[in-house]
Amino acid sequence: MKKLKITPIKNGTVIDHITPGVAVKVLHILKIPESTSSVVSVAMNVQSRMGKKDIVKVENRELDPKEVDKISLIAPKATINIIRNFEVAEKHKVQLPDEVIGIVKCSNPTCISNSKEPVQSRFLIVDKDPPRIKCYYCEREPEDIAERIT
Amino acid sequence: MKKLKITPIKNGTVIDHITPGVAVKVLHILKIPESTSSVVSVAMNVQSRMGKKDIVKVENRELDPKEVDKISLIAPKATINIIRNFEVAEKHKVQLPDEVIGIVKCSNPTCISNSKEPVQSRFLIVDKDPPRIKCYYCEREPEDIAERIT
Repeated sequence: MKKLKITPIKNGTVIDHITPGVAVKVLHILKIPESTSSVVSVAMNVQSRMGKKDIVKVENRELDPKEVDKISLIAPKATINIIRNFEVAEKHKVQLPDEVIGIVKCSNPTCISNSKEPVQSRFLIVDKDPPRIKCYYCEREPEDIAERIT
Repeated sequence: MKKLKITPIKNGTVIDHITPGVAVKVLHILKIPESTSSVVSVAMNVQSRMGKKDIVKVENRELDPKEVDKISLIAPKATINIIRNFEVAEKHKVQLPDEVIGIVKCSNPTCISNSKEPVQSRFLIVDKDPPRIKCYYCEREPEDIAERIT
């Protein structure tokens, strides 16, 4: 019987409680595989007390705040566990920012945030779970937020 | 310390010895996550005797021959292990087909396989590892085969 041996990691990040089916989008946000040659493990549709979930584990990497904001938009129940020297050094839930600035491209081609003006994209939160956002400038709601994350 | 518990699977497929960095493309070929609600596990950049590799494990699914042909084009060293009732029931290496018919879209927009004619795409093998193919009709070689798999 072929087993996948998953050993504890010394340093890195475990992203737990990802909405099932969303792990591949989390990898896309983290630019995996291009961004790393360290071990990455993914488990999808794993049964937990609160229903199914995905998990992503990345060795030798801690996420930057912008990456965590992006993850919060597609996996609002996710928890970020930072591992240092085999111990959980930090653990926190992702939190939707009050405003989403500079990380989602408005789906309205005529929106001022898509023009040549020096205007960063800016979205307000309409709903928290699942997250729904609308453009501060043109009020357009992106249908698939994951597809619009830059 | 947070561990990912990976238990043996009862039925399913383990795709081993995938070229490192290619696991996400294998998921794309298998239409994961859309195509399954069963558990899927992925390990990337795992050290093995023959260098680094990726592994994909899909529960409750056996691959069809077209999926295996597609995987052979992006991970020519991959092995397919079919698990039935906790045992490896079948194990084989992927094998590049002699011709690649109907699974890669030619990158030449004026190729007859991209016209309205009832002509299936058809490629000849130029090199086996890494795989290089060229269009039977217009001789164009796709630069990134993974991007052109339909």
